[in-house]
Amino acid sequence: MKSSKIVKTRKYRLEMNDKILNSGFNDFKKFFALDNKAYLQGAIPVKYKELMGLVGSMVLRCNDCIFYHLDRCVTEGVTKEELYEAMNIALIIGGSIVIPHLRYAFEVLEELQTTAEIAPED
Amino acid sequence: MKSSKIVKTRKYRLEMNDKILNSGFNDFKKFFALDNKAYLQGAIPVKYKELMGLVGSMVLRCNDCIFYHLDRCVTEGVTKEELYEAMNIALIIGGSIVIPHLRYAFEVLEELQTTAEIAPED
Amino acid sequence: MKSSKIVKTRKYRLEMNDKILNSGFNDFKKFFALDNKAYLQGAIPVKYKELMGLVGSMVLRCNDCIFYHLDRCVTEGVTKEELYEAMNIALIIGGSIVIPHLRYAFEVLEELQTTAEIAPED
Amino acid sequence: MKSSKIVKTRKYRLEMNDKILNSGFNDFKKFFALDNKAYLQGAIPVKYKELMGLVGSMVLRCNDCIFYHLDRCVTEGVTKEELYEAMNIALIIGGSIVIPHLRYAFEVLEELQTTAEIAPED
Amino acid sequence: MKSSKIVKTRKYRLEMNDKILNSGFNDFKKFFALDNKAYLQGAIPVKYKELMGLVGSMVLRCNDCIFYHLDRCVTEGVTKEELYEAMNIALIIGGSIVIPHLRYAFEVLEELQTTAEIAPED
Amino acid sequence: MKSSKIVKTRKYRLEMNDKILNSGFNDFKKFFALDNKAYLQGAIPVKYKELMGLVGSMVLRCNDCIFYHLDRCVTEGVTKEELYEAMNIALIIGGSIVIPHLRYAFEVLEELQTTAEIAPED
Repeated sequence: MKSSKIVKTRKYRLEMNDKILNSGFNDFKKFFALDNKAYLQGAIPVKYKELMGLVGSMVLRCNDCIFYHLDRCVTEGVTKEELYEAMNIALIIGGSIVIPHLRYAFEVLEELQTTAEIAPED
Repeated sequence: MKSSKIVKTRKYRLEMNDKILNSGFNDFKKFFALDNKAYLQGAIPVKYKELMGLVGSMVLRCNDCIFYHLDRCVTEGVTKEELYEAMNIALIIGGSIVIPHLRYAFEVLEELQTTAEIAPED
Repeated sequence: MKSSKIVKTRKYRLEMNDKILNSGFNDFKKFFALDNKAYLQGAIPVKYKELMGLVGSMVLRCNDCIFYHLDRCVTEGVTKEELYEAMNIALIIGGSIVIPHLRYAFEVLEELQTTAEIAPED
Repeated sequence: MKSSKIVKTRKYRLEMNDKILNSGFNDFKKFFALDNKAYLQGAIPVKYKELMGLVGSMVLRCNDCIFYHLDRCVTEGVTKEELYEAMNIALIIGGSIVIPHLRYAFEVLEELQTTAEIAPED
Repeated sequence: MKSSKIVKTRKYRLEMNDKILNSGFNDFKKFFALDNKAYLQGAIPVKYKELMGLVGSMVLRCNDCIFYHLDRCVTEGVTKEELYEAMNIALIIGGSIVIPHLRYAFEVLEELQTTAEIAPED
Repeated sequence: MKSSKIVKTRKYRLEMNDKILNSGFNDFKKFFALDNKAYLQGAIPVKYKELMGLVGSMVLRCNDCIFYHLDRCVTEGVTKEELYEAMNIALIIGGSIVIPHLRYAFEVLEELQTTAEIAPED
């Protein structure tokens, strides 16, 4: 059940993004392309870029963005210790107002791990 | 002259921090200690932690924090390409409202490099 | 079912506003009056004021406010192209952190149009 | 039913905090300790500290934080008039973008009072 | 003297933007291009787009952005009444925290008008 | 010299407020009146309201607002210990991003005390 929440959140995201990208308003597309490109392998390895995305999302307190970057971090094989250190940087920068999003991040992380165990990608 | 601005900003920061730390209110000290500790070497290397600090500072649009983390990044030997990629992540996450802080970051970076050339620490 | 979500959101808003306005604390009332007045016809036509309200709501990432101003925009006959241009300004100003709210705006817009078709006000 | 929502929100909060505090990452614990300590009796009485927490939570637009500080305020015996005056300060400082959180605060307050009546702590 | 402040602010902005655009990091350029394009004539007239930019800048409390959009608004012939109505929307949305930026906007506006009178572009 | 900075900041504020209030746009006046009224004696004593204003200003990171509420707090006889406790609540809520504003608050506080000693209001 919990893992189905992960699947549902991913699905909603993709479906709505499709509607935005197919709206006929092309500059949405261009922005989304720039957004994707910012996290590709470069001088900074992908996993650290995703962790930067996570820190940015937590200090700006955006749960949808936290979900996305956590999901990407887990895919990139970021360890729990690395995630905690990044979350701690976000907590210190952003203060106690970040705590509800830290709770959310812990909840998502737990579900992502359950999902990964139940439905391995082999 | 420009390099003296770097020196002045660092000095003001240290002097005011001293006043806060010596105010007799101990929980300020404890928070500052946690803040320092968050960026120490751990599972994530120092330079990526500083880049995370830079991204957090840029999306929250805090010039003083941008100055500090850029200063630290340069000390840690972060390359221009790495800095640009991190700044770009901050720009994409935070939008055009980040641009004035990107200008500031470019200005500080230029001054930090001039300072480093004029006054090498050997 | 989707259209009932629109109806429910409008209803919750009105009911809670009533409780605030009837709380006996009069300065809430005065602020609400100023808020309403800001969007009345003036040197700037109502529809552009509502689009300004939409941009302000999107860059500040407030879904309840996005719902309200989108609802008002549709009532004022704002076209899809106008809405997309305003949403794009908000996306560029506020960055990728606005994207979850762009998804929400698309979802609400779709529902508002369905509601309008199912229950026309003639 | 409404009072069960209060109970559920409190429970989720405690459970997730436990997971964070038991994650083995000790600096989370230290931050939470500083956070708790900030609201203890000092030169400023507890109830005014909680009202400050409420104002901070409302202007930063964090519903989870509003819930917590309202819950604490009610426990500390803060009166409705005091709550309204603090909420009004938050509304004036933060503007109409705070209104959805004012609605939430009214909703929570109503539920807290119902809960208190149904389940007194004697 | 006051008008020279306007000239200086415009010059700093252009010079720093040049450095960013000539940094060799092309995605900065692409973002700046999208940013410029968002305010071009479309279904919404330029002047209302600039007023939307002003509202977005004021509620996000970015003086550099306020300067730029006010400068553009004056160039586009936006009237004082229209500016006041847009500023009022920003004030109501963003609250008293916007007041320092309203003071700044009044200061800039006064200087822009003096500059225009002293140095007409004919 | 330092005390003249306090005088200058107060003067700029009053002059610009006058221009806003005399602009002929009456809703600015109404908002300013509501703003003033929010901090008057009520169920909550003035000094705690000003401390709430200080906390709100610090977590929203507005130096002009911090200046004003600190100035008012000192006038109301708020003690250093009370100020530190309120500043600490703001620091914990808002995180390290508040530190530059804590430095500013310490600087202003020092100047306010010097001003008070040099130029007593008797």
